[in-house]
Amino acid sequence: MGIGTTVTIAIIGSGTIGLSFAALHLTRDPHSKVIIYDPRPGLQAYIQANITSYLVNTDVQQCLARLHIAPTLKDAVERADVVQEQGPENLPFKRTLWPQIELHAPPHALFMSSTSGIPASQQCTGMKDPSRLLVVHPYNPPHIMPLLELVPSPLTSPTTITSTQKFFTSLARVPIPLQKETPGFVANRLAFALLREACSLVSSGVVSVKDLDSIVTSSMGPRWSVAGPFKSYHAGGGEEGLRGFMEKIGGTVGMCWGESERGYRENSIVVGEGTWQEEVCLQAEEAYGRVDTGERDRKTRRVLEVVGEREREVR
Amino acid sequence: MGIGTTVTIAIIGSGTIGLSFAALHLTRDPHSKVIIYDPRPGLQAYIQANITSYLVNTDVQQCLARLHIAPTLKDAVERADVVQEQGPENLPFKRTLWPQIELHAPPHALFMSSTSGIPASQQCTGMKDPSRLLVVHPYNPPHIMPLLELVPSPLTSPTTITSTQKFFTSLARVPIPLQKETPGFVANRLAFALLREACSLVSSGVVSVKDLDSIVTSSMGPRWSVAGPFKSYHAGGGEEGLRGFMEKIGGTVGMCWGESERGYRENSIVVGEGTWQEEVCLQAEEAYGRVDTGERDRKTRRVLEVVGEREREVR
Repeated sequence: MGIGTTVTIAIIGSGTIGLSFAALHLTRDPHSKVIIYDPRPGLQAYIQANITSYLVNTDVQQCLARLHIAPTLKDAVERADVVQEQGPENLPFKRTLWPQIELHAPPHALFMSSTSGIPASQQCTGMKDPSRLLVVHPYNPPHIMPLLELVPSPLTSPTTITSTQKFFTSLARVPIPLQKETPGFVANRLAFALLREACSLVSSGVVSVKDLDSIVTSSMGPRWSVAGPFKSYHAGGGEEGLRGFMEKIGGTVGMCWGESERGYRENSIVVGEGTWQEEVCLQAEEAYGRVDTGERDRKTRRVLEVVGEREREVR
Repeated sequence: MGIGTTVTIAIIGSGTIGLSFAALHLTRDPHSKVIIYDPRPGLQAYIQANITSYLVNTDVQQCLARLHIAPTLKDAVERADVVQEQGPENLPFKRTLWPQIELHAPPHALFMSSTSGIPASQQCTGMKDPSRLLVVHPYNPPHIMPLLELVPSPLTSPTTITSTQKFFTSLARVPIPLQKETPGFVANRLAFALLREACSLVSSGVVSVKDLDSIVTSSMGPRWSVAGPFKSYHAGGGEEGLRGFMEKIGGTVGMCWGESERGYRENSIVVGEGTWQEEVCLQAEEAYGRVDTGERDRKTRRVLEVVGEREREVR
């Protein structure tokens, strides 16, 4: 997969994430070839109707000319350098799929699943060589958001991890290998922890859904675009760093954690329990109706440009 | 406080946050006058040494010409339109201070405390008219970050809240009134909830401090600069909005919350307990040494410019 050579990516399953990954490959590497396999009826028309809006700042026709549909799984993967699975979130499906892919794909091909919930260690049980498989979990949509969590199983080889990391780095993505599998991986676990606190504060009547969103977009959002939470608090602690922050503010942090736990109990912030879910859903519908994701994505690209400038300068 | 008239702001206490607020007023309103009162020795030299780096994209000399030092509290507040308290986080100090301010300040002056922990309801007990006081809690540093949490006590009048909101909106800030006092207010509660999960994941060996920060800067940070968590998940649920998101992903969300709770217990993610604190502090020191906050602030300004473009277009 050297510079100027053609990399062939097989996309298995063309839902929203599959098409977004296809767009990522087509737009970020002008020599790439993308082959989609998906048994859904009317595939050609479906792809054409849905992928064009993802092909931004690029020659759309030139991209589409490098996009192909394979009639069978074998046709999709037999010349692939990368096989990316975005099928149903269904363990038997994935367990059956990988041995077939292994049978037909070239020995050098990288295998990756975009699952958000089924770890590679469960998917790989039927494979001859489970060291080839890992999870590549995007923060949606992957054609815009740079993060890719690389989640190896205990059997994934270090070579598979570094090759996958190198491949996505060459597409100007931010692939981060986790040290081990954990339910929800890292990004969702972090975001859901904040979501729980957000639901609790709304449910307690402290703040509305809309005002809570404004609080985040005018504080943590911009800050955490530039420096993550640890780096931010490390800077906040002055010369003593994170250690100084914990010494000075640790008491407040601990008090807030206690308050949060109390709020989760008192407001029953548990999925399917209490009234919080109805409350936040109603407020979200009232505040936003249907969100214009085109506008959101356009602005996110601009924020990422600024963050990217930083990275190019600093690295 | 109409357009073109001089607004006089008394800043009581000139620590980092006091000077940052002074810079906010001086740079955002070219007609404002800022009067600092602080009993610390060598005040003049201290202010000059520290405020200049906050006066960015502006005529520094013109700003400094509008900055004054008052020899007494009475001198500071007697012609003030706004009195902003940034003194020590110490209840007796604040309780004693407000009645003195009330005695000397004009009847129309707005009173606000930047405390992060002592609610207005506790500060106001010695005041003749406690309806005038509320907390205005910044997300540091306030001369850069737009968020101001306005936290009224049960006695704060609606007029005080709306006048304070109007005042900061005129300075292109994002003042968000909370519905009631809660420990830690909202922004810190949200950020600390995510921090706890972050500490737990590092402590479990899933991810390093540095990689966790990279995960956030390449996903939630940029996303939450443009749309807050509720709006993001409301968009993620498609036509059904947040309701659809919770129906489809609620099971995963609940599973992650359960995993998080288990992690906090097993890794003793409690301030002062377990080994997690030493672990994350060491990793932060190794990864970052001393953070260049100048670089961070410069890039944060650029991200905020982009977010600001959105707000001007959409509103």
